[in-house]
Amino acid sequence: MSGGGRDLVVGVVGAAGYTGGELCRLLLGHPDVGTILPAVRDDRSFERTHPNLAGSGLVFTTVDELEARAVDLDVVFFCTPTGHAMLAARHYLDAGAVVVDLSADFRFADPAAFERAHGVVHAAPELLDEAVYGATELNRDLVRKARLIANPGCYALTAVLALAPLLDARGDGIHDVAVHAVNGTTGAGTTPKKDLAHAEVFGSMLAYSLEGHRHGPELEAVFGALTGHEVGVDLNTTHGNFARGIHLQANVRLTGPTSRAELLETYTRFYGAGHDGEFFVLVNDNARTGKINDKQYDLYPRLADVVGSNFCHLGLDHDADRNVVKVVAVTDNLVKGAAGSAIQNMNVALGLPETAGLRAYAL
Amino acid sequence: MSGGGRDLVVGVVGAAGYTGGELCRLLLGHPDVGTILPAVRDDRSFERTHPNLAGSGLVFTTVDELEARAVDLDVVFFCTPTGHAMLAARHYLDAGAVVVDLSADFRFADPAAFERAHGVVHAAPELLDEAVYGATELNRDLVRKARLIANPGCYALTAVLALAPLLDARGDGIHDVAVHAVNGTTGAGTTPKKDLAHAEVFGSMLAYSLEGHRHGPELEAVFGALTGHEVGVDLNTTHGNFARGIHLQANVRLTGPTSRAELLETYTRFYGAGHDGEFFVLVNDNARTGKINDKQYDLYPRLADVVGSNFCHLGLDHDADRNVVKVVAVTDNLVKGAAGSAIQNMNVALGLPETAGLRAYAL
Amino acid sequence: MSGGGRDLVVGVVGAAGYTGGELCRLLLGHPDVGTILPAVRDDRSFERTHPNLAGSGLVFTTVDELEARAVDLDVVFFCTPTGHAMLAARHYLDAGAVVVDLSADFRFADPAAFERAHGVVHAAPELLDEAVYGATELNRDLVRKARLIANPGCYALTAVLALAPLLDARGDGIHDVAVHAVNGTTGAGTTPKKDLAHAEVFGSMLAYSLEGHRHGPELEAVFGALTGHEVGVDLNTTHGNFARGIHLQANVRLTGPTSRAELLETYTRFYGAGHDGEFFVLVNDNARTGKINDKQYDLYPRLADVVGSNFCHLGLDHDADRNVVKVVAVTDNLVKGAAGSAIQNMNVALGLPETAGLRAYAL
Amino acid sequence: MSGGGRDLVVGVVGAAGYTGGELCRLLLGHPDVGTILPAVRDDRSFERTHPNLAGSGLVFTTVDELEARAVDLDVVFFCTPTGHAMLAARHYLDAGAVVVDLSADFRFADPAAFERAHGVVHAAPELLDEAVYGATELNRDLVRKARLIANPGCYALTAVLALAPLLDARGDGIHDVAVHAVNGTTGAGTTPKKDLAHAEVFGSMLAYSLEGHRHGPELEAVFGALTGHEVGVDLNTTHGNFARGIHLQANVRLTGPTSRAELLETYTRFYGAGHDGEFFVLVNDNARTGKINDKQYDLYPRLADVVGSNFCHLGLDHDADRNVVKVVAVTDNLVKGAAGSAIQNMNVALGLPETAGLRAYAL
Repeated sequence: MSGGGRDLVVGVVGAAGYTGGELCRLLLGHPDVGTILPAVRDDRSFERTHPNLAGSGLVFTTVDELEARAVDLDVVFFCTPTGHAMLAARHYLDAGAVVVDLSADFRFADPAAFERAHGVVHAAPELLDEAVYGATELNRDLVRKARLIANPGCYALTAVLALAPLLDARGDGIHDVAVHAVNGTTGAGTTPKKDLAHAEVFGSMLAYSLEGHRHGPELEAVFGALTGHEVGVDLNTTHGNFARGIHLQANVRLTGPTSRAELLETYTRFYGAGHDGEFFVLVNDNARTGKINDKQYDLYPRLADVVGSNFCHLGLDHDADRNVVKVVAVTDNLVKGAAGSAIQNMNVALGLPETAGLRAYAL
Repeated sequence: MSGGGRDLVVGVVGAAGYTGGELCRLLLGHPDVGTILPAVRDDRSFERTHPNLAGSGLVFTTVDELEARAVDLDVVFFCTPTGHAMLAARHYLDAGAVVVDLSADFRFADPAAFERAHGVVHAAPELLDEAVYGATELNRDLVRKARLIANPGCYALTAVLALAPLLDARGDGIHDVAVHAVNGTTGAGTTPKKDLAHAEVFGSMLAYSLEGHRHGPELEAVFGALTGHEVGVDLNTTHGNFARGIHLQANVRLTGPTSRAELLETYTRFYGAGHDGEFFVLVNDNARTGKINDKQYDLYPRLADVVGSNFCHLGLDHDADRNVVKVVAVTDNLVKGAAGSAIQNMNVALGLPETAGLRAYAL
Repeated sequence: MSGGGRDLVVGVVGAAGYTGGELCRLLLGHPDVGTILPAVRDDRSFERTHPNLAGSGLVFTTVDELEARAVDLDVVFFCTPTGHAMLAARHYLDAGAVVVDLSADFRFADPAAFERAHGVVHAAPELLDEAVYGATELNRDLVRKARLIANPGCYALTAVLALAPLLDARGDGIHDVAVHAVNGTTGAGTTPKKDLAHAEVFGSMLAYSLEGHRHGPELEAVFGALTGHEVGVDLNTTHGNFARGIHLQANVRLTGPTSRAELLETYTRFYGAGHDGEFFVLVNDNARTGKINDKQYDLYPRLADVVGSNFCHLGLDHDADRNVVKVVAVTDNLVKGAAGSAIQNMNVALGLPETAGLRAYAL
Repeated sequence: MSGGGRDLVVGVVGAAGYTGGELCRLLLGHPDVGTILPAVRDDRSFERTHPNLAGSGLVFTTVDELEARAVDLDVVFFCTPTGHAMLAARHYLDAGAVVVDLSADFRFADPAAFERAHGVVHAAPELLDEAVYGATELNRDLVRKARLIANPGCYALTAVLALAPLLDARGDGIHDVAVHAVNGTTGAGTTPKKDLAHAEVFGSMLAYSLEGHRHGPELEAVFGALTGHEVGVDLNTTHGNFARGIHLQANVRLTGPTSRAELLETYTRFYGAGHDGEFFVLVNDNARTGKINDKQYDLYPRLADVVGSNFCHLGLDHDADRNVVKVVAVTDNLVKGAAGSAIQNMNVALGLPETAGLRAYAL
């Protein structure tokens, strides 16, 4: 089944959650991965935890056993809550593994910024210097040489892909962006909560963290680096009535003139057209034609068109009356927003083809 | 079944759509309504069109027959596409009926503004002067004397309820508001379209009209009247994976200081607490307590908590870092956003108790 | 708002769950109910537990306080798990209240049958004789005189309404029926469980209790009484991707000839046509016309057409090749399947109009 | 990316529908497929028709152009309505292509049986003899030599996989089976219909074809061949509130004794355990343990656990009181129920690894 010549050994710490399960699913289809070691803290059945992977033959190991085998690992992924990876990363790095952390532990270069956003003192500030922020499309050259990769948050990466071309082209005049994102309920984790029971969420929507979401500062750091000046991010988040995916809209008021056509040109130039250029980022460049109502549905991407895939679809519009640029970006929060981009980073860091194991289209 | 002493005769023009069906449903439970005459242009079965109302005994009449009986009517509701009500309203007004138009025909005082927003020349500009914009909570005194009521658009009314207290208290410094709203698929009407097939929308979201939604100018007119100066409205709309309801978030950047507590006080003063004051508008004034994640779910209203009812639930927050006020408003697009507020306006215009037939809570 | 002349005082024991909340919702709209006393065991906020009822002014009392006020109560509803009502019912009966138990405690005349089905020894077998099984449409005369009413299970009542006319007309030859029912997730209660989290159930279905559901024996008891002989019930249950409602199909193989037309006639005779006859049970008697595919959608009821209402819609078909009668019945599991029929029983037992507070149509 | 050494050229007739799109999606990931030629009758954009495949570079050809290139094709798939493939198959067969028909045209060996089930005279009865019914797990040896493969209907294949082991082991005493299946709305095709609009189906369920579904006779033919005697199939079908997947339950009354353990053993022996044996069919052999309610969720497969994959998960139970065997089978109606098993058949017919391009696990 494999076209890959390597036989990588990969560990997944915290493999009982949605992100850990998704990593296992994707790694099972990766042509260069030979051994997957999903690790959990307690004793449980892999097939009952991830029944979609029944038949795969994967079984859980313990976190302790995985640590004991650190020298065997080519890569280790952390799918743990904030605060775990920073305690264990050094051990795996010393053993020679590439570490991809899907938590927030290594996303801030400045330990004080981390502490402000997460309310925890950083336990391994000396590692922050070598950590690379794994927005692959922006930081590919850094990821190529990285040993410790901080995988972006799902909201953050989707927003970064939505806004990077605009900030690159027009960033001088942009000091504030507003982001509204609706996430699937897998984004809220596997711990049972009444508020996330099916009977509560079905047919509903529920906003949260409107006083300031933790991915806001993460975005401000990225956008500051992109533009060379401070960019305020007003990040607004809501749970939607679906299990997977992020539907994100970013609005930016411009100072100078633009048009939808010009914006499409800017984005297509930045990401390339189709799979030429950035494979995983597709700009919907359909023209606005035809009559009202009909015309809309080809202009903006639909969430369902990326669910299950590592793709990010982008759509653009321009409100000329207010000179506001509208960018719609859709991703699968567990794939491009987490496990998929983690593997994309692994591929780049190990010198594998960047799309290995990640080429599947959405259902 | 009735506690009402009157025996009103009510016509519904365009009764085959979702809004027309909803009007019939609510009118069937209204204590003062004795006769409901739902009218359509073609020949069809009421029970097959609105199977949820099977057993009610209602049957369709034709639009022509209804016009012929105009003198019998106390009230007529228009649930027709833009452009119909302005042709027929005069006939019913002359016959002595109160006219409540749920389309956009009479929402603009200025015929030129109507034409800009809808691309149609207004056929009855002489009626615009006497038309009252039926945001009942704001215009109650005008509605009381009205014969021709322009029922607000579903997005517009939800946004008006979300922002009126803030604009009332702090409007001097507010020149721009951003509104993001997700609507159920009943908002898109009953004409079959591939893009709104269940197989397409399920588990998805789809933005539309981002270049400028027609309810934007409607809102700008209302907010201009409220504040005495121009307020730009950036209205962003999306179809969600549910059939009914609007989840709307309005963000407003303030110039002076505020806090969540102060905002709650402003809103509670404006609308009253609980059912004292505005019966149909409830401000969620839960305090922010407890630990992160748990605390969120009591602060903002959930869409499902109003579906099926005429209520609007409001929640508030404040992003202190950016001094942005966040208002979450949820309504049922077919009830408070259409048929319910139309009946509320009827009640006020006829001197009935304002809540008659509208007291049902959400499921 | 009320047309009722009485001012009933009503208690609800176990008012924090979905059924208890639904009882409160319906009682708030009941013209004869003056005081609602929802009781819980712990200390919690009514508005945070049932945010859809915010503004209603209801507050929780404790179970102990409610017991202390038993003499004030006209009616008490039990929405408690199996085993609670049988301990407390005597106290309320002695105080003069009508008791409507929505749990299974009083559904079996024979304590041994209860113990077989529920694995618990019955604590008040002496009350079973006076308990009336509250399938109102079948037992109206008994309910009229009842002081202790055993409200049917949601699956059981839906199946009883689906099959009573057939068993009444053709029961001699029927010894086995198969029932397949899909229930909304509110049917599984409010305790958070991973398997009923939104992220797990969304877009999914999950069968349960296929080795024998507890409502099976309840149905066998009813059908035995209806036919005078033993009728085996193969009850199959599944969780569906919706919050409310039961979609139930009953299949019965006949020995003698029949046809769809004859079956429709049998059912319409049993229940009456439209609201004449049984108000809450509607037989869809649309003819099979038109071409294949189009024709189907008018023959069978749709779940959504009853959600939120106390109605049961029935549809019928006949597979002539196998001589199998197919009955589709849809109800709202929390209304007709629980709180609605409980109030219907209360109305009958107190001599109120049977439909008081229950006439709302589905959304 | 490919490990396959061949460079197959594959045509898809009728590629604008859900099944055609799904075939393209899966073929894009197939290691041995080099060229995909999706053909439609009209002029339309591939990317706008299947936006989930944006970037793939596929474009539509016309049916006429595809026919003109028949000699280039290794395989052609028909995703056309009943009646098309039987007109065109001979052309492709004569040109040397393997033909896999996903419609019903070649599913019956007897043209009269086809005409009874579909109401159409068969246009190519001379091809029926060489057509092989593509239930791969049962007919692998025939498929290996086939040039014309009749891919099973989605309901039929799911039911065949559910019941084959039981009929194989205990078929002598089985003369009737009852099948209840709920399908996603993609099963109803892409033509817009009001009854399948999102606003109509959301939160609902709708039965159809209860007087006798066309896949019933297809199943009776298969089961007759399996057992050597007539087996009546009572097939009941319903649209559910999800886009993809079939949740099917088959109930069979046995004459002799059995138990859940024995049934599990029968099924595991037939299909093998895990991926040993039949790769795509997994029997859930979890033991019934623990307390009521908790125990259920590991016994039966969940629909979501196969959506997007070519797997069929099976669960078993036994109602000892009635001696009824319950089999739950879940598949993705567009993958294992259509495009996936079509490719599985292609793989077998061409001597490729049977799982090539089909190993992806569900999300």
